[in-house]
Amino acid sequence: MTTPEKWGVVPHVLDLETSIIREILKLSSKPGVISFAGGLPAPESFPEDDLREATIRVYDKYHHQALQYSLSMGVREFREAIADYGRRRIPELRAENIIITSGSQQGLDLVGRAFLDPGDYVVCEAPTYVGALQAFNFYQARYATVGMDKEGMIVDEVEAAVKKHKPKFIYVVPNFQNPSGITMSLKRRLQLIDIANRYHLPIIDDNPYGDLRFEGEPVDSLRALGGDTVISLSTFSKICAPGFRIAWLIAPENMMGVFEKVKQCGDLHTSTFGQMVLLEYLLMDKLDDQIKSICKLYRPRRDLMLKTISEHFPSEVKVIKPNGGLFLWVTLPNGMSGKDLLPKAVDSKVAYVYGSPFFPNGGGEETLRLNFSNANDENIVEGIKRLGRIIKENMPQ
Amino acid sequence: MTTPEKWGVVPHVLDLETSIIREILKLSSKPGVISFAGGLPAPESFPEDDLREATIRVYDKYHHQALQYSLSMGVREFREAIADYGRRRIPELRAENIIITSGSQQGLDLVGRAFLDPGDYVVCEAPTYVGALQAFNFYQARYATVGMDKEGMIVDEVEAAVKKHKPKFIYVVPNFQNPSGITMSLKRRLQLIDIANRYHLPIIDDNPYGDLRFEGEPVDSLRALGGDTVISLSTFSKICAPGFRIAWLIAPENMMGVFEKVKQCGDLHTSTFGQMVLLEYLLMDKLDDQIKSICKLYRPRRDLMLKTISEHFPSEVKVIKPNGGLFLWVTLPNGMSGKDLLPKAVDSKVAYVYGSPFFPNGGGEETLRLNFSNANDENIVEGIKRLGRIIKENMPQ
Repeated sequence: MTTPEKWGVVPHVLDLETSIIREILKLSSKPGVISFAGGLPAPESFPEDDLREATIRVYDKYHHQALQYSLSMGVREFREAIADYGRRRIPELRAENIIITSGSQQGLDLVGRAFLDPGDYVVCEAPTYVGALQAFNFYQARYATVGMDKEGMIVDEVEAAVKKHKPKFIYVVPNFQNPSGITMSLKRRLQLIDIANRYHLPIIDDNPYGDLRFEGEPVDSLRALGGDTVISLSTFSKICAPGFRIAWLIAPENMMGVFEKVKQCGDLHTSTFGQMVLLEYLLMDKLDDQIKSICKLYRPRRDLMLKTISEHFPSEVKVIKPNGGLFLWVTLPNGMSGKDLLPKAVDSKVAYVYGSPFFPNGGGEETLRLNFSNANDENIVEGIKRLGRIIKENMPQ
Repeated sequence: MTTPEKWGVVPHVLDLETSIIREILKLSSKPGVISFAGGLPAPESFPEDDLREATIRVYDKYHHQALQYSLSMGVREFREAIADYGRRRIPELRAENIIITSGSQQGLDLVGRAFLDPGDYVVCEAPTYVGALQAFNFYQARYATVGMDKEGMIVDEVEAAVKKHKPKFIYVVPNFQNPSGITMSLKRRLQLIDIANRYHLPIIDDNPYGDLRFEGEPVDSLRALGGDTVISLSTFSKICAPGFRIAWLIAPENMMGVFEKVKQCGDLHTSTFGQMVLLEYLLMDKLDDQIKSICKLYRPRRDLMLKTISEHFPSEVKVIKPNGGLFLWVTLPNGMSGKDLLPKAVDSKVAYVYGSPFFPNGGGEETLRLNFSNANDENIVEGIKRLGRIIKENMPQ
């Protein structure tokens, strides 16, 4: 019998780790387990009726055109509609700057394809989004990590990292970061753009959650502030529904040929049908209300989770309160390990993602991430109580 | 202003050619041009009403589940349904051997991801499918090409190529090959499997057209004959509709972990919604009739194109009559170039794809590919007449 090794699967693929989050999700799908592990949007937030209506319109309006091959850059009218919508946040946005991707994960992959040779460095936050690490790990990236505080990435550390490691780009999740929930301040954004300009480095602005703000004023987007210094990734997954795998990448016009080429190599083009469903949905002009209704659903979940934590977690546990997004970031007392605690938590029928996989160069053992978007009130209260009990039972003496 | 070079786009991506076919498609989309250039299925063949019905059933039956994230391997019930259907041709097929891909182009990319380091060799036919070259070129593959005759790949040449170049796999399009239209004989298939087994090499069996047979008996599929020696790619694009970008890769069970990992890196998973539409379509049990109706549509187009060619092309031009598929393969008289002829043809409002891009190591200058699936009778007659005139006018003296 053959094996991947005997068949000559390349060593860097044999060495790739499967997504730890996806492994934890399998673990936490056991009956009775209350899971705060995933990053799933709440299914009851999906605009199911409107999407159904949009889908029927696709058949009525486009017929076989929706079922045929289409351009690698994406359906022209869809790119126009995204540009129209996107100008709320990025005044200069044009369809020429947009390529449609099969989820933001593919946007991350296209960035990796374009920029990364084995051993190339990426500057990123620690912690950072684990899916981005997975995309870049395939290209054998190395990471120059920069710490975070309440204003986000500590940009003062970036210049030294750039000088030392000559990275290919700077990767940030500036809004309600996954996993920390932190939003980067305006001052830090401007400072980062200045460094990127001086060293001629692209900033990769991964922005799936930017619209999910529960309170406070939005900070200007990196792309709006930095223009063609910034490549920006956005998606319908968190503001509408993830099941279509439709997202978009915004880049300088003279980079679009590069992204078109690597997109063609990878999957030729994204589903014509899926693009047209979301085109028709955009044309219904309900997305703003949809985003408001998501925030209205998630905000009380965040608040309830925070309140229950304050009642049931030991006071030594630190939690960051995010102004939006999907996640709470928890730091256990010194000496405790989120990874070691997980099997005990699962035994008590509650699951989360431990923090260390979000730190590409190690660290973060005492952290864990809790998702509040995909749990109802009852499960939030009961799950946090269980977790609080497990933490208390395992506190260092 | 930044440029891809200044931003450090990796050299092998800067050097990638954009798809020549996609460039020709842009050229041939000018008004009045009769195009035989694309590889598009006929839009009038799409089972639009059935797909509409299947789509509505998805909303009725799965609700928000169709709009949520799903597994990297694909929706379980869909993989089961594909296995059920696929056992017509591959008796041992099980869902455990199937991963859903975002079009067969992604299947080719996953194969490249798994097996190719820069400079690795691939054994393939000359000519071969240009989209596969595009997928593998990203990984900086080199090619050991093997000629074709009326029985397909000349397998006698394969063993020497394997010994000399130590390739990672053997890539073939065994049924109604794109571009040549040739189908590999049973004898050659068995011979190829024997070599693959002796040298412990995977065969990549790219099979988008296998079901589109107009006449003659089907040849047993490589996967059915070779079992776990063969990785097989199939797609809904040519037997149903390409707009959903839904295809599947069949591989040995112990390779599935590798493909799952590289799929996660690339786009996390394929559209849940698209998978469920095609699941419901499969459950309607109409695919066999659909395939019959496609063959009934394409066969007369092939015959009309062949007949018109016999009337209007100079007798020095050679054409291969395929038993199915989408393409005719044309060889011009010695000294003529399909590439040089194309601008003149487009001036006369007819387009095709010249053959040289299908030969990764050069050659094939005198060849061109004509698509018959996506043209109506009137355009077939008029376009072939125009092309015959251009060929005659440019015949070597």
